Amino acid sequence: MEQDCFSFDVNVCDVSTAARQGALHTRHGSVETPVFMPVGTLGTVKGLTCAQLRETGARILLANTYHLALRPGEDIVRALGGLHRFSGWDGPLLTDSGGFQLFSLAQRSLVRESGATFRSHIDGRELELSPERAVAIQETLGSDIAMVLDHVVALPSPDDLVREAWQRSVRWAERCQKAAKCPHQTLFAIVQGGLNEKWRAACAQQLVELDFPGYAIGGLSVGEAPEQMYEMLEATVPHLPSQKPRYLMGVGRPVDLLEGIARGVDMFDCVMPSRNGRNALAFTDQGTLRLRNRQYIDDPRPLEQGCSCIACLHHSRGYISHLFRSSEMLGPILLTAHNLHYYQRLMAEARAAIRAHRFAQFIAAKKSGWGDETESSLEEKPTDPQGLR
Amino acid sequence: MEQDCFSFDVNVCDVSTAARQGALHTRHGSVETPVFMPVGTLGTVKGLTCAQLRETGARILLANTYHLALRPGEDIVRALGGLHRFSGWDGPLLTDSGGFQLFSLAQRSLVRESGATFRSHIDGRELELSPERAVAIQETLGSDIAMVLDHVVALPSPDDLVREAWQRSVRWAERCQKAAKCPHQTLFAIVQGGLNEKWRAACAQQLVELDFPGYAIGGLSVGEAPEQMYEMLEATVPHLPSQKPRYLMGVGRPVDLLEGIARGVDMFDCVMPSRNGRNALAFTDQGTLRLRNRQYIDDPRPLEQGCSCIACLHHSRGYISHLFRSSEMLGPILLTAHNLHYYQRLMAEARAAIRAHRFAQFIAAKKSGWGDETESSLEEKPTDPQGLR
Repeated sequence: MEQDCFSFDVNVCDVSTAARQGALHTRHGSVETPVFMPVGTLGTVKGLTCAQLRETGARILLANTYHLALRPGEDIVRALGGLHRFSGWDGPLLTDSGGFQLFSLAQRSLVRESGATFRSHIDGRELELSPERAVAIQETLGSDIAMVLDHVVALPSPDDLVREAWQRSVRWAERCQKAAKCPHQTLFAIVQGGLNEKWRAACAQQLVELDFPGYAIGGLSVGEAPEQMYEMLEATVPHLPSQKPRYLMGVGRPVDLLEGIARGVDMFDCVMPSRNGRNALAFTDQGTLRLRNRQYIDDPRPLEQGCSCIACLHHSRGYISHLFRSSEMLGPILLTAHNLHYYQRLMAEARAAIRAHRFAQFIAAKKSGWGDETESSLEEKPTDPQGLR
Repeated sequence: MEQDCFSFDVNVCDVSTAARQGALHTRHGSVETPVFMPVGTLGTVKGLTCAQLRETGARILLANTYHLALRPGEDIVRALGGLHRFSGWDGPLLTDSGGFQLFSLAQRSLVRESGATFRSHIDGRELELSPERAVAIQETLGSDIAMVLDHVVALPSPDDLVREAWQRSVRWAERCQKAAKCPHQTLFAIVQGGLNEKWRAACAQQLVELDFPGYAIGGLSVGEAPEQMYEMLEATVPHLPSQKPRYLMGVGRPVDLLEGIARGVDMFDCVMPSRNGRNALAFTDQGTLRLRNRQYIDDPRPLEQGCSCIACLHHSRGYISHLFRSSEMLGPILLTAHNLHYYQRLMAEARAAIRAHRFAQFIAAKKSGWGDETESSLEEKPTDPQGLR
């Protein structure tokens, strides 16, 4: 279906990497890429108002089909004016399909060719999520960009399961495409294939034949090493059309975003900045700060010198440390704002570096600042199904 | 001690009630009265940034000596630049002395003539709070208005205890006055005396002889009926100097604020709007809404038509209901903002009504809107010592 509700431009391609700078255009506005999308699972990025989110530089948010279908239910969202009016966010919105929950709630889900069955993590009620149903829910929600239902498996998984999952993901993508009726919503496909380069390529090629307006790379950052993830990007991106946006789902650390951009990725989403912010960890160009550490109790400095977020403009590390030690809501709020601001600034700097054809130098400089901290305790994926922690 | 750090003007006196409209002037700015001060016990009004607080119309905040002395400790606050820089609030700040905690943490406190001893509600550590120490801590914190240490008892209490407490409060007030050294901070006295009109009058008269720059009325809203509280105001206010501000501590419901203003009160503080907001209750001119009630699930209307708070401008009752049902932080944030905005708007309307000499009509109109709901479940006082609920 030809659509005027969505388009994508590539403005500048870097000379020494596969990075490119472009723009997504939706009915709710345009967004420069590469772009990071904060995660608002239930129609709210935890702790921030829409005005505060916009102040961080965020221009497009992600919400989740599975979670919203359970609470409050898509019919309630529609009755309250659709996801934009419901959430109060008047910019572009992307909805994930629920496929990731097949992985994260694996013990509560069952996959058949017809679709997936979940037992609700809230009350045990059964939720059916077929490709057709995932599209219908997203159309009811009214997001600008919908995602096909995909079959996500943990890594490593047995080869048979990984193969079955990516092949099913292609069939489900085709069913989603046929089911999609709404002229105001665009639909992205999702490449699966585990850590197998040939399968990633084959999956990409088969999806490209279906001619989607955008392509996501899914099923990564689910247990594999970063280097394996980068290899899968290199195996996949060359098979995707250069004029379509590429979206790496659920990733990741700041360094992963830059490595993804260098390999041609345009869009990212991750709970990492918000979830870690709620747990007292701040991202800076000099690495991470753990605000519960004693050393910050009387530290009068801002989280990061020169940062213009609401935390750094008005508050000291010492105050934020006090907030976390006293279980005050403002601690998580301020660090969520800072981290999202940090991610948005990183993306803005990346876009500028691409336009200046100095993206390789930009990555090297950022990595040097971050040092070699492993960040092994960073929380990238929901470990509790509600993502409330 | 003559001070240029504080003054108070009465601009307009109502003709049919004791209400008056005036202004407090401090080193951190001026504040129109009658005024409501949001409670930021630990240097933060739970869930709101300073910018959001200012948007509610708040111009002066309250913080607490006892809580800040325990966490993070007044020396840390000083090391981080004093309470204003610490909290990020650059407007006037008032600190309560800790006297109220003698009541609210009674099982953890012991009062002698020399002062009070608390066992910390956090770690059991002992905290000594004498009149001199209460003043010293508040000078270290650097608030604009400090309060004398008073001896607050529950109502009803045995006559002997009530008498001992108000007479001790006068002696402690005098010790606080002698101990106060800081030229940048003003010190208010606190009238005690339980529900005994003669004792209230005697306490007021003795404190007035000590010539404080402002007078609070304390030990109310601690178990007595609203009518008893109003009677105590009527027994006390006539003995206070008309050119000094009068502050009714820890009160209260919207109707209590208006009844207090009608009896000559200029200043109020209470956790009621913020605490009840966190617990899903919204104040409106038509009474209260309990956002967890099923009836709001698909209600597309704002909390209150015509309200310009961040909740009412951007969100429906249905969305806020969803936030509370999903334990999302934004629910408490939005209702705290709405309720504080409601209280500030009520005070602004009260000031306008006084200036127009129609305050009695104003009260009648407001009461008619609120109806006769008893609001018996409103939470006015901390029931948990940390006030975290």
